[in-house]
Amino acid sequence: MRMHLSQLQDSSELKKLSYEELEILCGEIRQTLIQTVARRGGHLASNLGVVELTIALHRVFDLPKDRLIFDVGHQSYVHKLLTGRNLTFDTLRTFGGISGFPKRNESEYDAFETGHASTAISAALGMARARDILGEDYQVIALVGDGALTGGMCYEALNDAGSTNTRMIVILNDNEMSIAPNVGALSQHLTDLRISRGWSSTKLRVKSRLGKSRIGKRIYRVIHRAKCFLRYLLIDEGFFPALGFHYYGPIDGHNLKHLEKTLRLAKDAEGPVVIHVLTTKGQGYDKAEEQPEKFHGVPPFYVETGDPRSRPELPGNGATAAQELLEMAQKDKRIVAISAAMVSSCGLQKFQEAYPERVIDVGIAEEHAVTMAAGMAAGGLKPYFAVYATFFQRSYDQMIHDVCMQHLPVTFLIDRAGLSGHDGSTHHGVFDLAQLLPVPGMTVLSPRDLEELRHMVRFSATFDGPLAIRFGRDSVDLEGNYPYPGFQLGRWEKMTEGQDAALLAVGSMVREAVDAAELLKKRGISVQVYNCSTVSPLDEKTLKSLNMPVFTMEEHVLKGGFFSSICAFDALNHLALPMGCFGIPDSYVQHGGRSQLLKALGLLPEQMADVIETKLREAKDGR
Amino acid sequence: MRMHLSQLQDSSELKKLSYEELEILCGEIRQTLIQTVARRGGHLASNLGVVELTIALHRVFDLPKDRLIFDVGHQSYVHKLLTGRNLTFDTLRTFGGISGFPKRNESEYDAFETGHASTAISAALGMARARDILGEDYQVIALVGDGALTGGMCYEALNDAGSTNTRMIVILNDNEMSIAPNVGALSQHLTDLRISRGWSSTKLRVKSRLGKSRIGKRIYRVIHRAKCFLRYLLIDEGFFPALGFHYYGPIDGHNLKHLEKTLRLAKDAEGPVVIHVLTTKGQGYDKAEEQPEKFHGVPPFYVETGDPRSRPELPGNGATAAQELLEMAQKDKRIVAISAAMVSSCGLQKFQEAYPERVIDVGIAEEHAVTMAAGMAAGGLKPYFAVYATFFQRSYDQMIHDVCMQHLPVTFLIDRAGLSGHDGSTHHGVFDLAQLLPVPGMTVLSPRDLEELRHMVRFSATFDGPLAIRFGRDSVDLEGNYPYPGFQLGRWEKMTEGQDAALLAVGSMVREAVDAAELLKKRGISVQVYNCSTVSPLDEKTLKSLNMPVFTMEEHVLKGGFFSSICAFDALNHLALPMGCFGIPDSYVQHGGRSQLLKALGLLPEQMADVIETKLREAKDGR
Repeated sequence: MRMHLSQLQDSSELKKLSYEELEILCGEIRQTLIQTVARRGGHLASNLGVVELTIALHRVFDLPKDRLIFDVGHQSYVHKLLTGRNLTFDTLRTFGGISGFPKRNESEYDAFETGHASTAISAALGMARARDILGEDYQVIALVGDGALTGGMCYEALNDAGSTNTRMIVILNDNEMSIAPNVGALSQHLTDLRISRGWSSTKLRVKSRLGKSRIGKRIYRVIHRAKCFLRYLLIDEGFFPALGFHYYGPIDGHNLKHLEKTLRLAKDAEGPVVIHVLTTKGQGYDKAEEQPEKFHGVPPFYVETGDPRSRPELPGNGATAAQELLEMAQKDKRIVAISAAMVSSCGLQKFQEAYPERVIDVGIAEEHAVTMAAGMAAGGLKPYFAVYATFFQRSYDQMIHDVCMQHLPVTFLIDRAGLSGHDGSTHHGVFDLAQLLPVPGMTVLSPRDLEELRHMVRFSATFDGPLAIRFGRDSVDLEGNYPYPGFQLGRWEKMTEGQDAALLAVGSMVREAVDAAELLKKRGISVQVYNCSTVSPLDEKTLKSLNMPVFTMEEHVLKGGFFSSICAFDALNHLALPMGCFGIPDSYVQHGGRSQLLKALGLLPEQMADVIETKLREAKDGR
Repeated sequence: MRMHLSQLQDSSELKKLSYEELEILCGEIRQTLIQTVARRGGHLASNLGVVELTIALHRVFDLPKDRLIFDVGHQSYVHKLLTGRNLTFDTLRTFGGISGFPKRNESEYDAFETGHASTAISAALGMARARDILGEDYQVIALVGDGALTGGMCYEALNDAGSTNTRMIVILNDNEMSIAPNVGALSQHLTDLRISRGWSSTKLRVKSRLGKSRIGKRIYRVIHRAKCFLRYLLIDEGFFPALGFHYYGPIDGHNLKHLEKTLRLAKDAEGPVVIHVLTTKGQGYDKAEEQPEKFHGVPPFYVETGDPRSRPELPGNGATAAQELLEMAQKDKRIVAISAAMVSSCGLQKFQEAYPERVIDVGIAEEHAVTMAAGMAAGGLKPYFAVYATFFQRSYDQMIHDVCMQHLPVTFLIDRAGLSGHDGSTHHGVFDLAQLLPVPGMTVLSPRDLEELRHMVRFSATFDGPLAIRFGRDSVDLEGNYPYPGFQLGRWEKMTEGQDAALLAVGSMVREAVDAAELLKKRGISVQVYNCSTVSPLDEKTLKSLNMPVFTMEEHVLKGGFFSSICAFDALNHLALPMGCFGIPDSYVQHGGRSQLLKALGLLPEQMADVIETKLREAKDGR
């Protein structure tokens, strides 16, 4: 029986296939992943790495009765292909199509939604406890990558899980040890040893084992160099058992038979289990195996060369801010940058190459990043934390408690603010203003374009206090029509003249605002457009001088954002200005292209111009 | 030379004293701690536990050039007594007096401010990096309790610190192993072994050592039962070295000579060092030694008996909510409670006694707590997370990403919302509404008094979605004058009739509002008081029906809170209602009694009545 991926209706059918057939299926899945991501963009290397592991999980466990939770969730593509989404998989990450992350409304096989890292063990433990309390019977499996294990939440969860005797399985998908295929043989040997009955009694140490072979010595060196918790597991098998876990591993994550054997053992174990699986990122696509970081998350690319299908005309905002920072750092040794496992994504590579000791990558650890930055500032440095808006949510308390309460000069470079596009709801950066604006002592800026971003970064060097600069991924150049007058803290730039209304726009929405003004002009309505580059404190002088209806524009939820702060100022000053607001309403925005999402939200210039025209006419008519 | 504590001008003088003199000083410090905390309330047991350790730190290190960072910070009293605050120590935690936590504006010896747990290692690492980059020369010491080590941030920081070779010292103050004095001898023996040259080469394991003596066996049992990371350190000396740390310990934390010997070794070590110190909470005061948890944070008490000087007339809000929950749990097995190391503080003991498996204490791990709760809800339970408002800040991302985005029925019982009193700025719960209100799908309630709190908790049982109930520590009973009409979601209770203005009050401010209304009535001004028990969604029907000036009242920052959301609604509906707002302005509030703080903020009924009267008169006069 030869089953094509397109014929697979349900993952339970996998149980009938032979290993030979499964091997062919794995190849087909890899081809589908490569072709689809090449066309749609998305996460490739991590999905190529878990093909066998995902199949093994579906064969050994009784899904969806058993619950499978993907940490981060971007490695769930194979799972989606196996669970009724193979025929629609081509819509991956497109507006209205399949999400790039687990979604409960897509399939009952998606047990829990994820997007941010390090949550799966916590969620799995919660489900396992629910099962026990309700007297039900199913297994709960958390699949966690080694990167996510740098997040402190994982330790909180492991600590908690280990102190119970709840049945659950944590699979550590370790793809940093990319020294396969050699490691396969060794890991198989080790695992055979471990799952044999003699293992736990002899307490044979992996460390001593490792010393005996060439490959072992190599692994030991890698372990020793990496110095982190996960690495420690490899050299001390006592760690997880001491925490109350059964521990199996390391296991070759591309050997189906071997995986299944271990999963079956774990399935029926009493209490919590950790399985340590070694996989190779990008397995089966040479370009991705060679550059797993490049093919972690990729825009559409050509399969043959691995090159992107299109290149942006302008440098990205993050890279521009980082370049500016590097230039400042050359003159000022106090300037340092911090990243939570996003050095490349935030454009900090050049800075890191120039000053490796002044670009600190703390791992997926936004909480620690911010308090560490506060410590650096208290020690006399000028730290910059470059972070995606959505991940910055992790540092809410540390921002208030450690940075702002001590009024320390930490600058937050908040990247990917606004709609993140194809990654969808878990990745939109639409709560950062709500997070920043209420905090005493926090100053918040947002640039209209690349030129202003450069000015703001330069401004930050001399600013003594907590500061946030928020910007989207895609950069804009407004210089041609609107030469930049220079940045002044707390002063908004008037970009167009007009009498009928004022449009107050923040950051990415400034371009939409001037475009809307252009459209309105053609309809005989003249509006003033303000670039509200200082979001907090407000430009009170300008606000008080406005004697006309006001419309606000922001790529952020309306509640707790710019509009709200304008309304509060307005109420206290009895101005009665705001007539309308454009932003994100009280719901979660799905995935899609930025312009598709803007359209769905009524935030395109023509849509906003229509609303403004209507509202102004209604007001004129006295309605 | 006999030096009294009152004569000590600077901790450098300690270096001249003999061990005999120091022993006398320790006794004097303990007496001062007991007497002061008995009068002022505060943290006693933890401070009694670190008397010798703090003195040793001041003798061995060159403070304040070397930097000492206290995790949580409530164990800094001894440090304060030694650094020029001995003569004013009697003002501890009083309005305008010495803070119960490190404050940089109090002393240059307070290197970094803390209040929330698990931040010190991050801050210390930041400072150590600043020193290295700026080419300076000093040591950085983080003093961390074992409780704080359950917080994931510690692991993020240890992971980061271990991967560098930065000079810093982490002191783990382990006071869970309260089996001293016996442990003293053993720990001394072990430490002597470890710091002797032979130790690291022989790799003698503590575990095997422990097995050989009666005390050792006892320790091993404790370790084995506790199953957590810190315990693991005791049975595997390889853990910290594998992470890149030098490791010394365990050390008897009440033996000055022994402490100093180890600290001197650590002082000059290359790279990061961990010192594991065993102390006894409450050392030197029998009541506190016997009940360290009771004497962790205490209100004023009688030294002789340990009994509190006064008892509140009403049960606390937290205990009331917990009692209600317990009664519901008896009928509904889906109901479970989660606590982040606050079972007793949040009043959950009785629930825990009745259903130990349904009250989960996750340790100081608010991030994990919330995602675990989401997992429980996804598994069919009805989880309640009881948490202080200020610590809830730690779960900002998990609340959005794991609970609300999946619209899971997790209820947050937000205790200590509003001004926390004597703990001060790091503990006020004044950002929780800003954290909750912008999040799609989140419903927010706040009760006027105990009776309404009970109704809200009962209401929550049938509510299907994310829900927050916010309340302060102190409970109120308004039943006498305002019989409670019952709770209706989204409907505000009109408590008084009036024509001149409407006072919209949230939670704890309802009593202040009716008191203000009473005062205004005597001045010929009649106001409607609304109990805005549903903070989100707003009672739009009531808001639209109001045809008079509106004043809002909330124990929360004005930015991003109730007032802001009223203003936004108002602007969109062209009501032009708000005339004034009462709440916390754009700054951090210090410590003091609640009424002192309310007064300082202009939030006492008579103060608010004055403002309202003036504003209404001005409006009438057309100003």
